[in-house]
Amino acid sequence: MSTRLKQLVESLGGQLIGDPDIEVSGIAPLSDATASHITFLSNAKFRSQAAQTQAAALILSPADDAIVSASYQGARIVTANPYAYFARAAQFFVALHAQVVIAGIHASATVAPTANIAASAVIGANVVVDADAIIGEHVQIAAGCVIGRGVKIGAMTQLYPQVTIYAGCEIGQRGIIHSGVVIGADGFGFANESGTWIKIPQTGRVLIGDDVEIGANTTIDRGALQDTVIEEGVKLDNQIQIAHNCHIGAHTAIAACAGIAGSAKIGKYCSIGGAAMIHGHITIVDHVHVSAGTLALRSILEPGQYTGFYPVAKHGDWEKSAALVRNLTSMREKIRSLEKNMKQLTEQHTEQQRFIENTENSIKEESND
Amino acid sequence: MSTRLKQLVESLGGQLIGDPDIEVSGIAPLSDATASHITFLSNAKFRSQAAQTQAAALILSPADDAIVSASYQGARIVTANPYAYFARAAQFFVALHAQVVIAGIHASATVAPTANIAASAVIGANVVVDADAIIGEHVQIAAGCVIGRGVKIGAMTQLYPQVTIYAGCEIGQRGIIHSGVVIGADGFGFANESGTWIKIPQTGRVLIGDDVEIGANTTIDRGALQDTVIEEGVKLDNQIQIAHNCHIGAHTAIAACAGIAGSAKIGKYCSIGGAAMIHGHITIVDHVHVSAGTLALRSILEPGQYTGFYPVAKHGDWEKSAALVRNLTSMREKIRSLEKNMKQLTEQHTEQQRFIENTENSIKEESND
Amino acid sequence: MSTRLKQLVESLGGQLIGDPDIEVSGIAPLSDATASHITFLSNAKFRSQAAQTQAAALILSPADDAIVSASYQGARIVTANPYAYFARAAQFFVALHAQVVIAGIHASATVAPTANIAASAVIGANVVVDADAIIGEHVQIAAGCVIGRGVKIGAMTQLYPQVTIYAGCEIGQRGIIHSGVVIGADGFGFANESGTWIKIPQTGRVLIGDDVEIGANTTIDRGALQDTVIEEGVKLDNQIQIAHNCHIGAHTAIAACAGIAGSAKIGKYCSIGGAAMIHGHITIVDHVHVSAGTLALRSILEPGQYTGFYPVAKHGDWEKSAALVRNLTSMREKIRSLEKNMKQLTEQHTEQQRFIENTENSIKEESND
Repeated sequence: MSTRLKQLVESLGGQLIGDPDIEVSGIAPLSDATASHITFLSNAKFRSQAAQTQAAALILSPADDAIVSASYQGARIVTANPYAYFARAAQFFVALHAQVVIAGIHASATVAPTANIAASAVIGANVVVDADAIIGEHVQIAAGCVIGRGVKIGAMTQLYPQVTIYAGCEIGQRGIIHSGVVIGADGFGFANESGTWIKIPQTGRVLIGDDVEIGANTTIDRGALQDTVIEEGVKLDNQIQIAHNCHIGAHTAIAACAGIAGSAKIGKYCSIGGAAMIHGHITIVDHVHVSAGTLALRSILEPGQYTGFYPVAKHGDWEKSAALVRNLTSMREKIRSLEKNMKQLTEQHTEQQRFIENTENSIKEESND
Repeated sequence: MSTRLKQLVESLGGQLIGDPDIEVSGIAPLSDATASHITFLSNAKFRSQAAQTQAAALILSPADDAIVSASYQGARIVTANPYAYFARAAQFFVALHAQVVIAGIHASATVAPTANIAASAVIGANVVVDADAIIGEHVQIAAGCVIGRGVKIGAMTQLYPQVTIYAGCEIGQRGIIHSGVVIGADGFGFANESGTWIKIPQTGRVLIGDDVEIGANTTIDRGALQDTVIEEGVKLDNQIQIAHNCHIGAHTAIAACAGIAGSAKIGKYCSIGGAAMIHGHITIVDHVHVSAGTLALRSILEPGQYTGFYPVAKHGDWEKSAALVRNLTSMREKIRSLEKNMKQLTEQHTEQQRFIENTENSIKEESND
Repeated sequence: MSTRLKQLVESLGGQLIGDPDIEVSGIAPLSDATASHITFLSNAKFRSQAAQTQAAALILSPADDAIVSASYQGARIVTANPYAYFARAAQFFVALHAQVVIAGIHASATVAPTANIAASAVIGANVVVDADAIIGEHVQIAAGCVIGRGVKIGAMTQLYPQVTIYAGCEIGQRGIIHSGVVIGADGFGFANESGTWIKIPQTGRVLIGDDVEIGANTTIDRGALQDTVIEEGVKLDNQIQIAHNCHIGAHTAIAACAGIAGSAKIGKYCSIGGAAMIHGHITIVDHVHVSAGTLALRSILEPGQYTGFYPVAKHGDWEKSAALVRNLTSMREKIRSLEKNMKQLTEQHTEQQRFIENTENSIKEESND
């Protein structure tokens, strides 16, 4: 289960310098690569490590190649974006070793007669597919998933075990949805009447574009009256909560444990750090990066990186700084009072100075007399 | 599948002004409503939008009606709480369109012989109901749920797919439990012995009152020796963690990603914002509102809103403010030192002033001489 | 279903003072214990409560025994660590009441022919075990779990319903894994190419040591190229996210809702508080305690407790302090300006003082004349 470099380059591009018939059996990081591996250099600070690697071949940028090629003896694949090339090469090796998947519906699955399942789809053990669902070509639905009434899943999308998709939601093509994900549960919508809560039915859907990956145990709620929308190319990590009526722009990446409150609108090409929280009903424009642990309370209308979390310290130091943070008003009062006193004193000083100068002058005059 | 306004008002009350035979097919927000919709005005700032809506009918308050009726030509339903009326009207339309549910136990379900399942209950595909469980009338348990030994589920409660309820837990009537919820897993209880952890068996239960809704992937742990209690009318959003021995008072609402640590006691009619964290063993009285992203470290014994999260800023600005927060002690020292210097200087100034005044007086005296 | 004190002491050790034939039917906290219970005193501040308990027997330390024995009339079990003894005694009573578990594979389970399942294992309803999985002796896998290809589960480990373990992951002996846990989902790894994300296949595994407990809905991602490692004795609460390539040292305890970002390395005997977040690629040494709600941004290389969260306050007070935190730079500027003015004024004052002293001297001289 190995491949020749020429096959790799035929599939993925890049300029091969060295013997095209060298065989490699996998890809490994610089620190671990052996003579049967291809490896990659994506950060100039590891140049000297790359120069000494035992790997059979090295993926690197033209700039790094100009330097590393002086000492590294193996084959090189030169490409503008070695990290992206590494990702594609790793996919290539995974495909080489992949299990054959046999299309069909497992005997233990429960599929409604009106569900429309492509012949090339794989429906695993104990999967439940409700009425009118449409499952595209080469879709893989692993054991224990539950697909609600009228759900649409686009071609080549893969569901890991135990995913739940509520009625009416739509998933694009080439998606990857990990275990425990819940798509389309009710948003948190209630009207308050004399202290008790009256449920507002959540009748919107969740619409998910193509090439979206969703991490384990992430939840995406259906819209209240309109839909919750996740555009194409969005990548969601584990344990993320996306509330009803959110709109996440294309190619935005959200790290684990983040929460996006209701009706928030996040632009394209954004990144939201782990455990960051986006407040409801706010707008975040394209190319905004919210740091981990940050709560974005108001709209962010300018690209850039935004941060807000309390700096960690030894517990005793934190106690002191936290006590002072609670007391900042009194600190400001002290500064104001100092400023006032300072001004007064300065004025008084100036008056004294006038007296002193007068006195000095009169002394001089006296002595001149 | 439409309804006449008179049918709506017969069911839900309110004062109808206009043709009772107008037919509406659904409810929509002001921004989307067409001539076949009923819509609602629950915020005075949208009065002018309401006045121009094409909707067949408008739900609004007496105060808004006094103004909007001058320009809006359609039918009006006047009610004290238009938002609550909207919620009920939306429920009315959902019921109109609801799928018929057929009672019975799916052939693929595994039900223990000693489980007691009401004839009107619906038990879905692959559901597992363990010994001695009691499932009430009209309960719906969707595909893949696992109901532990001796669990009780009250009438009309609805479980979405893949809910797990551990042995001995009890759920009230008219509850709604979303997919991925885990009720009754062990609390996090260990005794430390020379660095290693010895498990403390968690033998309490989870007791959940009537009319409780629980969002997707929320977890509620069983008590250690006593029970974890969620009172009636509580609404829990997604991905919430409620630890062992917590007590959540009636009609409290908790937003997504919040965490309630062990033995915390939260009062009635509270709200806990998204990703807020309530420390263990503290008490929060009735009518307390904890803002999103806030960690409540100590008991809160007075109603009101409580907040504590670091304000977000551009990353560079945050870096500066965070560095200063870490250094607040030194800032306070500087202020103290300034205050000390100021006091000293002021005293010295006063002394100088005395000298100057003496000198001035003696000059005057001299000149008077 | 009760036990004599002598049986307890034979099993668990400790020094019994009192009648060894006293029967107790369970263990209860001081506040609830009746004459059929054994109870425990693990905190000196409850000594007077212990002295008055109606419990048949009391577990306590030698130091507490010296005091409490003067007034408490029941039997005592004296032991160095009463809380650990309580944990073991509670386990003892649970074992007394435990349901008999019958080994075997439920008829509705789907087990691959090449899976290797010990005869003493229990495989529940609808469980799916994929090819080449190895399930050890006395393992219990409850309803609806999905065990991937080649997974290994060590002897006596217990999986609650609806756990998912992806292909290739390994779990040690005597583990406890709660419902909704997902082990081995893909880490969040992508290369960016012109704004879009290219998936980096996650080909590492998750390796979990012996005696690890994992709380409900916790997720542990597989490594990218290497493995994610959880060492023996680690205790993980609910809803925790552990990213790819993390390494958690033995006997570390992590509370609910915490997140550990990619490639973080946490030492042995650490504790991570609820909702704490550990940044990626950092190192935390042994015996570090990170408080709840704290974001650890940089490596922590010294044992101790570390904290960083914004102190909660009434909303209005928070608004004021938060506004000042945003403005700390200006506060510092004001202090600097005050310091500068103070220095200037002090110098000027010194000069004036010199003039005054000169004048006084000359006055004295004059009067001496």
